Amino acid sequence: MRIIEKLDEMQQQAESWRRQGKHVALVPTMGYLHQGHLALMKFVRPRADLVVASIFVNPTQFGPGEDLDKYPRDTSRDVKLLGDVGVDVLFIPHAEEMYPDQFQTYVEVKKVTQPLCGISRPTHFRGVTTVVSKLFHLVKPHTAIFGEKDFQQLVTIRRMVKDLNMDVEIMGHPIVREDDGLALSSRNVYLTTEQRRKALRLSQSLDAAEDLVKKGERSGNVILQRVREILAEDQDEDVRIDYAELRQPETLEQVDHVEGPTLLALAVFIGSTRLIDNRVL
Amino acid sequence: MRIIEKLDEMQQQAESWRRQGKHVALVPTMGYLHQGHLALMKFVRPRADLVVASIFVNPTQFGPGEDLDKYPRDTSRDVKLLGDVGVDVLFIPHAEEMYPDQFQTYVEVKKVTQPLCGISRPTHFRGVTTVVSKLFHLVKPHTAIFGEKDFQQLVTIRRMVKDLNMDVEIMGHPIVREDDGLALSSRNVYLTTEQRRKALRLSQSLDAAEDLVKKGERSGNVILQRVREILAEDQDEDVRIDYAELRQPETLEQVDHVEGPTLLALAVFIGSTRLIDNRVL
Repeated sequence: MRIIEKLDEMQQQAESWRRQGKHVALVPTMGYLHQGHLALMKFVRPRADLVVASIFVNPTQFGPGEDLDKYPRDTSRDVKLLGDVGVDVLFIPHAEEMYPDQFQTYVEVKKVTQPLCGISRPTHFRGVTTVVSKLFHLVKPHTAIFGEKDFQQLVTIRRMVKDLNMDVEIMGHPIVREDDGLALSSRNVYLTTEQRRKALRLSQSLDAAEDLVKKGERSGNVILQRVREILAEDQDEDVRIDYAELRQPETLEQVDHVEGPTLLALAVFIGSTRLIDNRVL
Repeated sequence: MRIIEKLDEMQQQAESWRRQGKHVALVPTMGYLHQGHLALMKFVRPRADLVVASIFVNPTQFGPGEDLDKYPRDTSRDVKLLGDVGVDVLFIPHAEEMYPDQFQTYVEVKKVTQPLCGISRPTHFRGVTTVVSKLFHLVKPHTAIFGEKDFQQLVTIRRMVKDLNMDVEIMGHPIVREDDGLALSSRNVYLTTEQRRKALRLSQSLDAAEDLVKKGERSGNVILQRVREILAEDQDEDVRIDYAELRQPETLEQVDHVEGPTLLALAVFIGSTRLIDNRVL
């Protein structure tokens, strides 16, 4: 596996691949890889001539007071894992080259970034779409793949690609979970044993909501009531619901009655760690 | 000359050219072409394998009350002119396909779009950078050329390309003028004969400023005082200065003393027609 750090080198390599008619897939990450990330790599590996993984803890998608400085990193372990799943190039740009002095350009998707995570993280998606634009221009992928755990991010990127006519196919990959249901996340490392047990309430509440819908329940209120009961069990002070909402999966408009496919999206603080999870019902 | 209207067709053609290793140049315009536009086409013609001109009167760069509806159009004349200068493809996208329902993504360059035209046209540059991004993704040019008459636009696009790592070389082309000095503009057609005579004050004031600097004057106040005197001659009610400013030509920061290359930028209403002009002193 080749490691590229310089933007020019990445872009020239990408241009050369495209001229040769090679199909390039990009898997953008912030590193500290888990099996969720690796599932994306394994999924695209047989679907592309060249697989590029990027690791970049993107400062513009962290708000003030968020965990940019303490975001977990372990590049040497990441390198080993990516080599094992057959990634061709690991692109590790540096923040100073990505955001030089006088940097002042942002890509903003307006509507779908407003609700859900957009409320508690008002500049987050602007940071995501800006850096993904940059990565697309540098790596020139035909295909890029993102996990469905960050569902709103995936919706936002699809919208950006469509609106700006980027010639990139966006693929989503189902959430990868531990055996007990916890969605994989680099931030799970922040949880104590006790908090990790409480974190299971997220997937348990999704299961419960899915059961209700399967049994014919259509009322958003009833479903969300059940979800909140499970999340807030025992009025535990260590658990705080940021949001639990039903939304249309493309426009992210609010849904009161479950008619077609409906996104149930959760963000919950367990102690000071904010976890997200979701399911399309 | 081939005319392409569909976005998909343009993008597939562009991808095919790039695979063949062809050098593609794009000249984006809003049509109603004059010799200024054609100078851009003639300039890039020998420098590219394929020259694409685009005509799109981009609604998102017009503010409320601006001249979107009455912006002059003459596509059949444009087609003739472009054929004559050897353009290969004329790309004429339609607004409904460029901005479909649910369109909600914008590219914004923050600092350099604030002063000068950004004050009276607060959403103009956001519209420009958004549509130029879209055109770049659709036409995939190696080179794109813009006239220096819209100097702030050129600075903004250069900044966007650099910040978002777009693999496009941006070229500027000197302002093309009538024999009497009036900078060519599609909006000159709005001027009455009397107004057109008054419009000459813009280039005359630029000449005067250049003379002052050549004679050793370095004070911004003195230079701008002279420019305003020429523009506002006779306290003519038909002439209103929007701005007359000295700025650093890359950052567009204000300049008080002319040391290095300095942009003198003008925007002046002649009647209800707003004209711009500039010179780097």
